Amino acid sequence: MEQFQYYTPTKVIFGKDTHKQVGTVIRSYGFHKVLFHYGSGSIKRTGVYDQIVQSLNESGIEFVELGGVEANPKISLARKAAQLCIDENVEMILAVGGGSVLDSAKSAAAGAANHCDPWLFSIGEKVLEKTLPVGAVLTISASGSEMSNSCVMTNEDCWLKRGFNTDLNRPLFAIMNPELTYTVSPYQTACGITDIMMHTLERYFCFNTDVALTDRIAEGLLKSVIEAGKVAIENPTDYEARATLMWASSMSHNNLTGNGRDYFMRCHQIEHELSGMYDRVAHGAGLAIIFPAWAKFIYQNEKALPHFCQYANRVWGIDMDFAHPERTALLGIEATENYFKSIGMPVRLRELDIDDSKIDEMAEKCTFFGKRVLRDYIPLGKEEIKKIYQLGL
Amino acid sequence: MEQFQYYTPTKVIFGKDTHKQVGTVIRSYGFHKVLFHYGSGSIKRTGVYDQIVQSLNESGIEFVELGGVEANPKISLARKAAQLCIDENVEMILAVGGGSVLDSAKSAAAGAANHCDPWLFSIGEKVLEKTLPVGAVLTISASGSEMSNSCVMTNEDCWLKRGFNTDLNRPLFAIMNPELTYTVSPYQTACGITDIMMHTLERYFCFNTDVALTDRIAEGLLKSVIEAGKVAIENPTDYEARATLMWASSMSHNNLTGNGRDYFMRCHQIEHELSGMYDRVAHGAGLAIIFPAWAKFIYQNEKALPHFCQYANRVWGIDMDFAHPERTALLGIEATENYFKSIGMPVRLRELDIDDSKIDEMAEKCTFFGKRVLRDYIPLGKEEIKKIYQLGL
Repeated sequence: MEQFQYYTPTKVIFGKDTHKQVGTVIRSYGFHKVLFHYGSGSIKRTGVYDQIVQSLNESGIEFVELGGVEANPKISLARKAAQLCIDENVEMILAVGGGSVLDSAKSAAAGAANHCDPWLFSIGEKVLEKTLPVGAVLTISASGSEMSNSCVMTNEDCWLKRGFNTDLNRPLFAIMNPELTYTVSPYQTACGITDIMMHTLERYFCFNTDVALTDRIAEGLLKSVIEAGKVAIENPTDYEARATLMWASSMSHNNLTGNGRDYFMRCHQIEHELSGMYDRVAHGAGLAIIFPAWAKFIYQNEKALPHFCQYANRVWGIDMDFAHPERTALLGIEATENYFKSIGMPVRLRELDIDDSKIDEMAEKCTFFGKRVLRDYIPLGKEEIKKIYQLGL
Repeated sequence: MEQFQYYTPTKVIFGKDTHKQVGTVIRSYGFHKVLFHYGSGSIKRTGVYDQIVQSLNESGIEFVELGGVEANPKISLARKAAQLCIDENVEMILAVGGGSVLDSAKSAAAGAANHCDPWLFSIGEKVLEKTLPVGAVLTISASGSEMSNSCVMTNEDCWLKRGFNTDLNRPLFAIMNPELTYTVSPYQTACGITDIMMHTLERYFCFNTDVALTDRIAEGLLKSVIEAGKVAIENPTDYEARATLMWASSMSHNNLTGNGRDYFMRCHQIEHELSGMYDRVAHGAGLAIIFPAWAKFIYQNEKALPHFCQYANRVWGIDMDFAHPERTALLGIEATENYFKSIGMPVRLRELDIDDSKIDEMAEKCTFFGKRVLRDYIPLGKEEIKKIYQLGL
C-alpha cells in the first residue's frame, strides 16, 4: 500500500429539492456576489435556471451570468469568464451543470484569482497557488468534478485537451439533487455511467495487490453503478437509481477508490486525444471504446492478470477458472463491453464513423510529441498507443 | 433514500513514518503553540513520544503537555486540559493516541474555546458554536474519532457516559501510520475490530432499502475488516492488515457507510451504559456482547429481516434460504458472534463476571430515566433494553 493523502473538504448537500437552498448555502459562507456559470441553456428549459435565480434573489446574492459552456469545455470561454469575474469583483463562481461547466468554472476561477491566462495552469506553465471558490449545483452525474481536484480544458486554437490536478480545484460545496438528472437523455446518461465506472476502473487496475479495503469499496461502487445504470436508462425518473449514479459520480473521482494505490489514468489520456481530435465524441463514449481495446491489449500481462481475474470474479460474478485465469479475465472484459453496448454506448470507433486516418497523429499527441511514455503494466509509447486505437477500430 | 449532508474536511496523511511530519503539518496551518495530549504513557515506551517531540521542536512548535487520558475518557481530565489551554494560550490540541485521547481533546477544545465546563456540551445544555482545532496522530484503530463528528465522555461523578455530535468536532488533520499500531495488544486490537465493524453495522441495519451504493460500500468495508482482523491478530506486524484496519476505522465512522440512511446507534447506546457502569468493560468488548444479543432480539421483525438476510448473504457468503429467510438471518448473526469469539472477544456478560444485578439500573439510565425510547425497527423502551441485556448474560 502506498502512502496517501486524502482531502475531500467539499461540503455535500444531497437530496430532493436541495438546489433551492443554493442562496442560503452561499450566504452561509458570507459571499455577496457570484458568477452564475452554466451550459447550453437546458437549465432554462427545465426551470432550474429560474429556481436558482429565485434562491439567489431571496438570499440577496448579487450575480452576473455567463452561459454557453460546451462539452469538452473550451479555454476561450473560461478566459472570458475569468475576465468577467475580475471586471465585476465576483467573490465566487457558482457552476450549475455537469463536469464541463464545473471545469470551466475551475479554470476561470484560477485565471481570475491570478489575473492571468488560465491555460497556463492546464499546460503546467504556472502552478496554482490561489483561486476563487467554486460551488456546484450538479445536473449531470458523470465527471465527479464536483468533489475532484481535476480540471480538464480544451484549447481550440491547437485542439489540445489538457488536465491539471490540485486540491485548490476542489469545490467549496456541491449541491446534488438527483431529480435534476431526470431530463438527461439516455445517451448522456450512458456516457455518465461509463465515465463513473472508468474513474474507478482506471484506479482499480493498478500495481498494488495490498489495497484490500480500497478494492472492496471500488467493487461495491462498480456493482451498484452497473445495477443502477440499467434502471436509470429504462426508467429515467427512478429516484434511487439516479441518486446512486449521482453519489457514485462523486465517490468515484474524489479518490476514495484510489487511496493507497499507485495508479495511472491511461485510458483517460488515450481518450482525451480522441475527443480532443473529434469534438463530436463524448468523453464517456470515447472511454467505452478505449477501455475494452486497452484491456484486450494488456490483460495477459502477468502483473495485470490477477487484477482482471479479481474484477471478473467479484464485480461480474464470473467463476474463477484457476487452470485458465486468462479466460476468466477475458470474460470480465467482454462482460464490461457487453454492458456498455446494453446501455447504448459505442464500443468501436467505426460506430462513430472514425477510421484509422488520425491514429498516428493522436498517438503522437498522446505522447506529448515524444516527450512522455504512459505508465502502465507495460510502458505505453507511441507504438503501444497506436495498437490500442487499432484494437478499437 | 434520505436527504443527507456529507462533510469530511479532515485532511488525512496516511502511511509509514507519517507521524514524523507532525511538526511540519502543524506549521503548515500557521500554529505556534499546542497542547500535546495523550494517554497512559504507552507512547513513551514505544518511542513515539520522543519522535513527536523531536518533530515539534524541529518545526519550532511550542507545546505544553497533558497525559493520563484513560479508556472511557473522563470529563475531569478534559476540564483540566481545557483550563491548561486557556492558561497557556494554546492555539490547537494535538491528540496522540486513540479514540479516548481524541474525544478528550475534542471535549477540552470545546471547553477552552468557550471558557466553560465541557460537560455542558455532552449533556446538550450548551450547543457548540466554536472550538479549538484538534489534530490527531492515531495509535489505535477503533473509534474513528479521527474523522468523526462525535465526542463521547464519561462523568465519573455520576458514572454517566454521553456523546454529542457536531461538524465542529471533526479534526483538522489526522496522521495515520499503521506501524504505530503494531504494539497494540491482541485484545485491544480485537476491541478495535469490533468497534469498527459496529460503526458500520449500526448504520447498515436501518429503515432504508433504497441505499444501494451505501450498502455496497458498507459490505465491502465489513469484508475487508473481517479478513484483515484475523491477519492482524495472528501477525501484529502485518502492514497491510494494520493499514486496512486503520483506514476502515476512519471510513466506518465519518458517515461514508451511513449516507442516505435513517439510522440509529442503538447498540452503542445500550453498550454505553454497560461500560459506563463497569469501567473494566472496553467499549469494543461491550459491543461484541450487545450486538448478538440485540440481533437475536430483533431479527425476526419484518422490517429487520431483509437487512439481516442481505448481511448474511453478502458479507458472510451464506446462501439465501428463500423458503426460510429467518434461518439465513440467524446464520449471519451466528457467523458474527463466532467471528468475535475467534478474535478473542467476549460474547456474554458472564465472561466479564457481570450478572443481572445492574440490568434494571442500566436499562433505566439508557432511557434517560424514562425520558427517551431508542429508535429501532421496534421502539426500545426499558423493558426491551432489559431483554437485550438478558440475552447477553
